Amino acid sequence: MTKENNTHSILIRNINWVSHQQNQVTNGYVIIENGTFSKLGEGEPTPQELDRVKQVKWGKGKWLIPGFVNTHTHTGMNLQRGYSDQLPLQQWLQQKMWPFEANLDREAVAAARGLAMVEMIKSGTTTFLEMYHLFMDDFAEDIINSGMRASLMRAMIGLCSREEQDAKLKEATHFAKTWHKEANGRIHTMMAPHAPYTCPPDFIERIVEVANDLSIPVHMHLAETLKETEDHIHTYGLHPIQHLEELQLLNEVDWLFAHAVHLKEKHIEIIQNAQSNISISHNPISNLKLGSGIAPIKMMLEKGIPITLGTDSVASNNTLDMVEEMRVAALIHKGINQNPMLMDEITTFNMATINGYRALQFEQVKGIVEGSEADFLLINQNEAHLQPSIQIFSHLVFALNSHDITDVYVQGKALMENRELLTLDKEKIIQEANAHFHRLEGLLK
Amino acid sequence: MTKENNTHSILIRNINWVSHQQNQVTNGYVIIENGTFSKLGEGEPTPQELDRVKQVKWGKGKWLIPGFVNTHTHTGMNLQRGYSDQLPLQQWLQQKMWPFEANLDREAVAAARGLAMVEMIKSGTTTFLEMYHLFMDDFAEDIINSGMRASLMRAMIGLCSREEQDAKLKEATHFAKTWHKEANGRIHTMMAPHAPYTCPPDFIERIVEVANDLSIPVHMHLAETLKETEDHIHTYGLHPIQHLEELQLLNEVDWLFAHAVHLKEKHIEIIQNAQSNISISHNPISNLKLGSGIAPIKMMLEKGIPITLGTDSVASNNTLDMVEEMRVAALIHKGINQNPMLMDEITTFNMATINGYRALQFEQVKGIVEGSEADFLLINQNEAHLQPSIQIFSHLVFALNSHDITDVYVQGKALMENRELLTLDKEKIIQEANAHFHRLEGLLK
Repeated sequence: MTKENNTHSILIRNINWVSHQQNQVTNGYVIIENGTFSKLGEGEPTPQELDRVKQVKWGKGKWLIPGFVNTHTHTGMNLQRGYSDQLPLQQWLQQKMWPFEANLDREAVAAARGLAMVEMIKSGTTTFLEMYHLFMDDFAEDIINSGMRASLMRAMIGLCSREEQDAKLKEATHFAKTWHKEANGRIHTMMAPHAPYTCPPDFIERIVEVANDLSIPVHMHLAETLKETEDHIHTYGLHPIQHLEELQLLNEVDWLFAHAVHLKEKHIEIIQNAQSNISISHNPISNLKLGSGIAPIKMMLEKGIPITLGTDSVASNNTLDMVEEMRVAALIHKGINQNPMLMDEITTFNMATINGYRALQFEQVKGIVEGSEADFLLINQNEAHLQPSIQIFSHLVFALNSHDITDVYVQGKALMENRELLTLDKEKIIQEANAHFHRLEGLLK
Repeated sequence: MTKENNTHSILIRNINWVSHQQNQVTNGYVIIENGTFSKLGEGEPTPQELDRVKQVKWGKGKWLIPGFVNTHTHTGMNLQRGYSDQLPLQQWLQQKMWPFEANLDREAVAAARGLAMVEMIKSGTTTFLEMYHLFMDDFAEDIINSGMRASLMRAMIGLCSREEQDAKLKEATHFAKTWHKEANGRIHTMMAPHAPYTCPPDFIERIVEVANDLSIPVHMHLAETLKETEDHIHTYGLHPIQHLEELQLLNEVDWLFAHAVHLKEKHIEIIQNAQSNISISHNPISNLKLGSGIAPIKMMLEKGIPITLGTDSVASNNTLDMVEEMRVAALIHKGINQNPMLMDEITTFNMATINGYRALQFEQVKGIVEGSEADFLLINQNEAHLQPSIQIFSHLVFALNSHDITDVYVQGKALMENRELLTLDKEKIIQEANAHFHRLEGLLK
C-alpha cells in the first residue's frame, strides 16, 4: 500500500539547523533526497548541489529542528475538549466521557481525528501514538492521506466475557498485522491492553503473546491514579508493575507505559532491570489537570529509564500542543524537587522529540542527522519572545510558542508551509467537528 | 501631562463579549466612548447607535475578553532571557545576573523595555507592574507612548549606608509623586522595598511611611525561597510576614506581595486578618523554574486572599506570556493537591485579569462591564485547538494560545490590530535588543 513518490529532492539554504545531541546550531543548508537528509552543510551549497536538486527553498535564517513526537493520545476523543473539567478521573469517565462516547459513530470519530491532525500539524507534531478502539482502519487511511507518522493500536478493555475478549484481540491482531510498516513505513502498530485495572492478567498475557509473535511493542496505561494502583495492590497483593514482572511479561516484549505516576523506587527498579526496552510516556499536563499527581521523573532519569512525552487526549489537557507539554514537564520537576538543575533543556527537548521516535521504534528517524528520514520543523525566530537570539535550546524549551512553527515536514514532504496546511482542509474540518459535536450532544438531551 | 484625545468613539459589532463574573458569552456589540464601555448590547446595534459613533468595526464572531494584568515583572531585565538557566537563585543572581546588569546603561534598558512591551502586547497583556531601579522616568515616558497601562516603582535595596538609603528613598518618592495617575490615569505608582532580606526593618518602615503619606500601596518580594525565609527567622526570630506585623506595618498601607511561596497557615492568617488590602502576586513559572517551590495558593484561596498572577522577569520564566502563566497556575495547584476541582476556570481567569486591575488599584477598569474603561482583547476562535466552540472559560484557561489574540485595546485605543502593533516598531526593537545584548555581553569578556 505504499503510495508516495519520494523521489522529490529539496535543498533548503540559509537555515540554522539544530543538532539535538548538543547545544549546537549550524548556519548552512540541508539536502533531502528520497525523504532522507542526504547532506547537512555549513555555509552555502556548491553549484553542483544546487544543480542536483529539483527544488531550492530559502530558510530565511529560520531554525530547523526535529519534529515533536506525542507518545500517548486518543485523538478519537478530540470532540471532547472542554466538555467536562474539574472532575476526578472516575466521575469524569463515568458521568461525562462514557455517555458521550456511547453515541460516537464513524463520522463523528472521523471529525474528531481530523480536528486532532490539524491541531497536531499546526503545533509541530510530526508523529503520534494513537490508542483508541473504534474505526482503526480509518485512522490508518488518514495517516496515508495526511502524511503524518503514527503508531496506531486498537486498545482493549478486558472487563467482558472471554468471547468478547477474543473478538477484540482478533480485531487488534488483524489491525496490527495489516498496517505495521505501511504508508511508506510511516505507520507502526502496537498491541494495547488498556490498563491493569481494566484487563485481567490472563487477557494481558494473551495480548503480550501476540505482540511477541508480531515483534511489536505493547502500550498500556500504568498507575495513573493512586486509587487504581491501591485497588490493584488490594486485589492482587502486588503493585501493577510487580504483577507484570511476576507474570514474566516484562521481558517478553518491549513496552511503552503511559503515565506511570504512582511508582516507588522499587517499582522503577523493576523497569530498570527488565531485559526488554521499556519507555515511559510522561503526560504531565493531563496528570496535573485530573489531579492524578506527578510522575517520579527525577528518579526515572537517575535510573536511566527512557522518558518520552504525551499529551493524553484533549478531554484532559486540553490541547495536543507538545510545546506546552515540554515546557510544563521541565518546570514541574524543577519545581517539585526544588532543584533548577533538573530537566536541562537538551534532556527535555530530546524527551519531546528523538526519545519519542525511539520508543515508537521509528529507528529510521534519528533527528537532524545525515541518513535520517527527514521529519523536521522550521521555526520563525523573529518574534520578541525569542530574543535575544542566543541559547537556542533554552528558547525552544522555555520560550517557544507553537505558533512560531512555520513549516512541518515528514519524510521530506511538506505538511505545512508558512502555516498553511497542505494535506488537510482546516476550515472544513473545524466546521465538521462542531457539527458532529452538537449532533452528539443533542442525542444526550 | 495628559496628552491623549479620547473623544474617539468605536462600535464593534458581531462580537462575542465575555462577562468575567459568570460563564456567560453574549453575541452582540459594544460601544466605546471616551475610552469607556458606554454600551454592551445583544444582537445588532440600532441605526441611532451606528450613527452616533465615529468608527464601526466588525468583530467576525471573535471573543472579546478583559486584558491580562501581569502583577510582577522586571522588564528592564528583558535582555537576559535564556542568559542563564539551571542555577539556584543565589548563584544565578551572583554569577550571571548581577555582573551582566552592572554594565546596563540607559540605551540597553530602553532596548530591554521595548522588547518587553512588544512581547506583552502581542500576548495580550494590557497592564503590568514594573519593579525596577534604573531610568524609571523613561519607563513612564514609554507608557505614555506605547499606550499600555502600568504600575511603576523604583525598587530599593537597603544593604547600603543610611545616606545611600536616603538617596534611593528620595528618588523613589519623587518618582511616585511625579507620575502617579499620569498618562490619562494609565500610570500608577507604588513604593517598593526589594525584600525583607535586602532591606533592614527601619528602612522598610521609612518606605511604608512615605507610601502612607502618598496613599499608594507597597510592593515587595516575600518569602520567595526557603533559604531567605529561614535566614530571616534565624536573624530576627520571626518569619518575614510576622516581622512586618510585629513592626505594625501591615495595617498602615495596602500591600502587594510577590511570590509568597514559603508561608504556613499561621502566616497566611496574618495576611487574612490585616485591616489593609493585601494581595498576592503568584508567579508559578518563575518559582518552578528557579526551584523555589510552589506557593500555597489553595490555602490562600480558602482564606479569601486576593490572588493575582505575574511572570517575574524573562530571566526566570522565560516569557512574559500571561496565557502560559494562567494555565500553569491552574494545572499546578490541581496537580500538587491531587484535586481537579481546585482552580476552576473562572477563578483562574479572574486571577489573570480583573484581580490584577484591583491589586494595582486601577478601579476604573472593571472588566467587560458598562462604565468600565475599555481595556480588552479580541480572540480569533477559528483555530483547531479552540474547537468545539463551547465552554469558553475552559478554552481560555486550558487551550488558548497567546497568538490567538488578534487585537489589544487600552482605554479604548488599539495597541494591536490583526496582530500588527500600532504604537511600537517591532522590527526595530528586536534589532536593537540584539545589538545591545551583544554589546553588553562583549564587555564581560
